Amino acid sequence: MSLRIATVGLDLMAEALREQGVEPQSIDWRPPGVGDPETVRVLAALYGDDRVAAANERAVAHLQSARPMLVTAGRAGDLIPGLEGRMILHAGPPVEWERVSGPQRIAMSAACVLEGWAGDLDAAETLLERGDVGIAPAHSLGAAGAMTGIVSPSMACWEVAEEEAGVRSWSPMNDGSGDAFWLGVGSPEAIRRQRLMAEAVAPGFAAALRARGPVDVFAVCAQAVAMGDDCHMRHQAATMLLLREVLPAMAERAPRAVHPVARLLSENGHFALTVTIAACRAALAGTLGLRGSSLVAFISRNGTDAAVMLAGLPGRWYTAPSPLVGDPLYRPGFSDADAAPDIGDSALVECCGLGGAASAASPGVAAFLGGGLSDAIARTRDMAEICLARSERFRIPVLDGEGTPLGVDARLCVDLGATPLINTGILHKDLGGQIGAGIARVPLEPFRDALAALAEDLAADRA
Amino acid sequence: MSLRIATVGLDLMAEALREQGVEPQSIDWRPPGVGDPETVRVLAALYGDDRVAAANERAVAHLQSARPMLVTAGRAGDLIPGLEGRMILHAGPPVEWERVSGPQRIAMSAACVLEGWAGDLDAAETLLERGDVGIAPAHSLGAAGAMTGIVSPSMACWEVAEEEAGVRSWSPMNDGSGDAFWLGVGSPEAIRRQRLMAEAVAPGFAAALRARGPVDVFAVCAQAVAMGDDCHMRHQAATMLLLREVLPAMAERAPRAVHPVARLLSENGHFALTVTIAACRAALAGTLGLRGSSLVAFISRNGTDAAVMLAGLPGRWYTAPSPLVGDPLYRPGFSDADAAPDIGDSALVECCGLGGAASAASPGVAAFLGGGLSDAIARTRDMAEICLARSERFRIPVLDGEGTPLGVDARLCVDLGATPLINTGILHKDLGGQIGAGIARVPLEPFRDALAALAEDLAADRA
Repeated sequence: MSLRIATVGLDLMAEALREQGVEPQSIDWRPPGVGDPETVRVLAALYGDDRVAAANERAVAHLQSARPMLVTAGRAGDLIPGLEGRMILHAGPPVEWERVSGPQRIAMSAACVLEGWAGDLDAAETLLERGDVGIAPAHSLGAAGAMTGIVSPSMACWEVAEEEAGVRSWSPMNDGSGDAFWLGVGSPEAIRRQRLMAEAVAPGFAAALRARGPVDVFAVCAQAVAMGDDCHMRHQAATMLLLREVLPAMAERAPRAVHPVARLLSENGHFALTVTIAACRAALAGTLGLRGSSLVAFISRNGTDAAVMLAGLPGRWYTAPSPLVGDPLYRPGFSDADAAPDIGDSALVECCGLGGAASAASPGVAAFLGGGLSDAIARTRDMAEICLARSERFRIPVLDGEGTPLGVDARLCVDLGATPLINTGILHKDLGGQIGAGIARVPLEPFRDALAALAEDLAADRA
Repeated sequence: MSLRIATVGLDLMAEALREQGVEPQSIDWRPPGVGDPETVRVLAALYGDDRVAAANERAVAHLQSARPMLVTAGRAGDLIPGLEGRMILHAGPPVEWERVSGPQRIAMSAACVLEGWAGDLDAAETLLERGDVGIAPAHSLGAAGAMTGIVSPSMACWEVAEEEAGVRSWSPMNDGSGDAFWLGVGSPEAIRRQRLMAEAVAPGFAAALRARGPVDVFAVCAQAVAMGDDCHMRHQAATMLLLREVLPAMAERAPRAVHPVARLLSENGHFALTVTIAACRAALAGTLGLRGSSLVAFISRNGTDAAVMLAGLPGRWYTAPSPLVGDPLYRPGFSDADAAPDIGDSALVECCGLGGAASAASPGVAAFLGGGLSDAIARTRDMAEICLARSERFRIPVLDGEGTPLGVDARLCVDLGATPLINTGILHKDLGGQIGAGIARVPLEPFRDALAALAEDLAADRA
């Protein structure tokens, strides 16, 4: 009988044994809180506090039952309270102009041209630099956007209402591939597309939604997940389901909108993405203010910083430098050297049981990323490790209807040293435009800092 | 050490041993040709004949490369050559009026009312009984239809062209759930729906297809299979993809058609089914006349008889009584006693790598039938046992892109005693209307008879 050795945790020992010809049995174990005593103390306090468990339970219950409804579309300036004057919203946490990422600079400048505040992109940059045009996080006004997430008053945007918590949310209409603000492209064609959406597409949807009533966004997402969408990198089914929902009413009430809408949707499989983002923000915002909750309400990146907000600490962003997107798949000729760091508010989707959480539902996304079904299932299982529950709504056909992981718990993230996987695109850092896609992981620091603040907040309360 | 017994083939011996407390190891083996010496002789001749292998290779190559295109829609009488005067087409092989199944009788009678040949269903039945209205298999004029498959000259139908073999094919537009000819319902609402489709929907598609050019049907099906359709019992994705393909052109060229089309499609997830059927017939018809081929070109049922036609014996149907649909899932209050035998030309779909062959791509259908993904995969594997190849076009996401089984070989069916699995609906035998769904298996006799004729044909040639 030969000697059998088990190794625990890091692979160093196992590797050393292998070099000596002994095959150990590795056990996947990491010290809690990644070994930092202060973090261990915070985790112990939060795991031992009934208020945290109770608040998280309420937070998850809300995510299960929230029913965000797409109520209308229109000019952002008409729909979003507070979006007034010369102001541009952006994805991610607050950032000063000097630190704004390349893709956001370009899209902000193009928005100034769209609004008629500047004649060209250079003049627009001057306005922005001088502060003659203000910038603010979309989240600060209850909105959220994909990638650059730029919203200016004349842009077409969606409005979603979640009645259970009495929340509204907004997201700019998705402007497709190539020449598009969301991808950091500010070409004349990108500006023309924005005009078309604001003048023809949004009014068509508004008329249709008024006539037929609101659309249950998560019901559409649930069907889409059953049809191979992860509802982040792939929105093919959701886009078509949205069209099917509104088309009869649109053809009746706003027949002239049908042609531009049909052309737009037939060319843009991502069209429903920002409907989903607005819906996820509306659902998640309903958890804000649940005192003590360690649920991750928002994850948000602006291509410079990545940020996290907990349900228990509303209004407080915890940030770290935004990392490059992992497992990148670049278009020919591009590499990490060209890539902007991770960007966009779309990780809200992952906080709601979609995107990376729904990887196993979308072998198409897995194949695009160069993997197979087993990789996709592994990604969903990874998300389950840091989530509090399984969605009762979003079900994965290949797992015989198992729910997607729902409700990211910052405690589990810090405990396991793992943060949510985000299926996302990659933009060029200087020129804008999409150059690839991959799987982003939010840095761990903001989660750790947020938990420390949460523990402090609860301790203060008890003292 | 205890005695171990292996049993081979039928379970009788194994059961007898189990009753005596011995657990045998069962081996799944059946004698070739299900034990019949004449069938064994036929199989030996056909397996040993190079002409069969060569013809089958050409047949499969054609199924892989055929590219049926949806070219137009219109009145059946305007599109289908030979559909003239007082004539009604039906699914399945030829059948005399006395033996026509209940659902087909009802739909035929309703078609007479639609055409204005009779004032009501009773008067229509008299006309049909007297032969004042002729009936013929849709296949006899190059068409095919789902379930009852009724086509009369004023009904809306699709036209598909396959240029490689120079074949055209037609199928009636699908009239949805409930009050519908294809389900054997002849109500005033069913007749109204037919008029709407012929007067508004078909012209809209015709205008759009003229403007944008033909739609590659199998490309649509391939995408739909990637989105959870089996393209027989489930056509949700294919229906939306079809809409997405034609809508921009329809909105531009026939804007008034958009509203009825949008309403129809939003209520009918099966709408694309008959586009697929026409495309499959067009692809399969290109194999007809490949001397010696044992490929199953057509499978066809009329609710009375089930029939098979081999690529090597064009124009010759081999029939047996149509069986009840297996694994039935009935609506409440219905049972086998109410069920019409298996009906429809839609098994063409299974002969083209879709439907039952694509079961693994459609966990939704499996769940509807009360099973899980493993059942769905097992059904695809069963089909692979009787197929000559794997589709290079229809790929199953959960099997990491494996192609669906393609090209049913009658030799393998007879050799293994297994015939294609067909995902299908169940109609009421007297009243019409859908009462359930299940998995039909075509009886083995027609395959055996067809092979005997094929062997005879080849022997005559060699003599």
